[in-house]
Amino acid sequence: MRLLPALLACALCAATATVFAQAPTRGMQEIIDGAPAEAWRSLDPERTLYLELDAGRVVIELAPEFAPAHVDNIRTLAREGFWDGTSVYRVQDNFVAQFGDAEGDDPALARDLGSAARKLPAEFERAAAGLAFDPLPDADGWAPQAGFVAGFPAARDPATGMAWLAHCYGAVGAARSMADDSSLGAELYVVIGQSPRQLDRNITVVGRVVDGIEWLSALPRGPAPMGFYAEAAQRTPIRALRLASTVPQAQHVALQVLRTDTPTFAELVESRRNRRDGFYKRPAGHIDLCNVPLPVRRTPAP
Amino acid sequence: MRLLPALLACALCAATATVFAQAPTRGMQEIIDGAPAEAWRSLDPERTLYLELDAGRVVIELAPEFAPAHVDNIRTLAREGFWDGTSVYRVQDNFVAQFGDAEGDDPALARDLGSAARKLPAEFERAAAGLAFDPLPDADGWAPQAGFVAGFPAARDPATGMAWLAHCYGAVGAARSMADDSSLGAELYVVIGQSPRQLDRNITVVGRVVDGIEWLSALPRGPAPMGFYAEAAQRTPIRALRLASTVPQAQHVALQVLRTDTPTFAELVESRRNRRDGFYKRPAGHIDLCNVPLPVRRTPAP
Repeated sequence: MRLLPALLACALCAATATVFAQAPTRGMQEIIDGAPAEAWRSLDPERTLYLELDAGRVVIELAPEFAPAHVDNIRTLAREGFWDGTSVYRVQDNFVAQFGDAEGDDPALARDLGSAARKLPAEFERAAAGLAFDPLPDADGWAPQAGFVAGFPAARDPATGMAWLAHCYGAVGAARSMADDSSLGAELYVVIGQSPRQLDRNITVVGRVVDGIEWLSALPRGPAPMGFYAEAAQRTPIRALRLASTVPQAQHVALQVLRTDTPTFAELVESRRNRRDGFYKRPAGHIDLCNVPLPVRRTPAP
Repeated sequence: MRLLPALLACALCAATATVFAQAPTRGMQEIIDGAPAEAWRSLDPERTLYLELDAGRVVIELAPEFAPAHVDNIRTLAREGFWDGTSVYRVQDNFVAQFGDAEGDDPALARDLGSAARKLPAEFERAAAGLAFDPLPDADGWAPQAGFVAGFPAARDPATGMAWLAHCYGAVGAARSMADDSSLGAELYVVIGQSPRQLDRNITVVGRVVDGIEWLSALPRGPAPMGFYAEAAQRTPIRALRLASTVPQAQHVALQVLRTDTPTFAELVESRRNRRDGFYKRPAGHIDLCNVPLPVRRTPAP
């Protein structure tokens, strides 16, 4: 989720650098640093959102292959400036940060949805046929198969032929009420805690945060039980939420994500399944879907 | 991890209350509200730490059954005020907040450890014999068995006869350097993101946060790669870290945690394995160890 510019020292050292034993296999940072250019994928501005907060920018990659109707509606809302002046109105520890129109259910105060659709189908899962699925080697408790589709953490059921996006850290989903088809993509949430995989196939996932999640994850928590701020003044203002393709080039941040369908990525996963950097005394021999790092970097100068 | 005072409405509703269908089984809040007194366990002040930050108090329950030497050292350090005036000097998104003596490796500046031991054994795991283990019904990717010991998320291997604490959200561990036995319990970290289960059996876990984790999880993140603040002024000061038994009664917070060895808890786990509250369209039929809520409440007035 974060840009990874430098060598990762041992994970939980007492506050200093330490001396490393020679590792027999490459560690993650070495793999990333040595990855060929084709192991990386540049974000497509047509499927990238810039969420502008006073503290910084949150970059979201959208997943139209899983939620085409929601992504289309989000693009419309973004183009029409729906979110400008809205807010992050809910932050629940170990769960989500949620944003949009805090007055959205009050007809007297709700923002106009403009050209956006007022009804969308639920997009909880889709046919797996036609999707390139990069499986993880390990069993997943929540699904018959876990892996990646277009760089997104995903799951698949061969018995039903369906695939869906997983609620890993940084996943962006469309808040809804009781009805399956009650989300519009106008109220969005981001996972900022332990992966709530029980939400998989119960809610439409529209994308994931690729940069700047700390501007959400470090926000003050709202009160129990669900983290909705009690006072409007506590909400974090959203200055704008725009599709990157509509933002002047000079304001772009050029990011690349590591592809999940290359030998580089397979080696990275294995380096995390079995850590042999000297700090780890017992390699786990396992990794959960939501523990797999998905590296992001600034696009190198040509 | 949080106090649960009120009915949990649906998880990701667009900012309002919604109408519920009648659920055929009890939801978590109903189970908690209806739990008999004996389903709860009061924290023992001899194994409870109060971490005092300007923003609030973080309450930590220690696990001496798993890390007796580290807990003993922590008690010594706490009694001697070791942490008074130290700081939270590292916050890494989706990983840990770490605190203690930021200058601990500089002999000229390091705080005196007083009566505390300068060398402790590694306490990564222990014999399972003698431990009451409350197993979860589901498979765990990281261990042959997952469940709870004395209310702590734990794992067990029948083949080796060993048990250990799991790195779930809120777990408190003892930072070390390369050597297994290089931790003293003076530098501690708290998990504030996706459970880093690869650390299980690689580092000594000393307890878990039972209240106030938001005073750590919402701290500003330090810079990449590991979140150590660059400037001393960025660190969050620790006013005190004390064993609750040394704190005047008037300053205590009386907390209870839900026991993990009762029919109440078994029903709670099942209610989370298969959510039937109307919002969830597809019950998962599974739960991961680190997704199991461990409720905490203020001790009711007698």
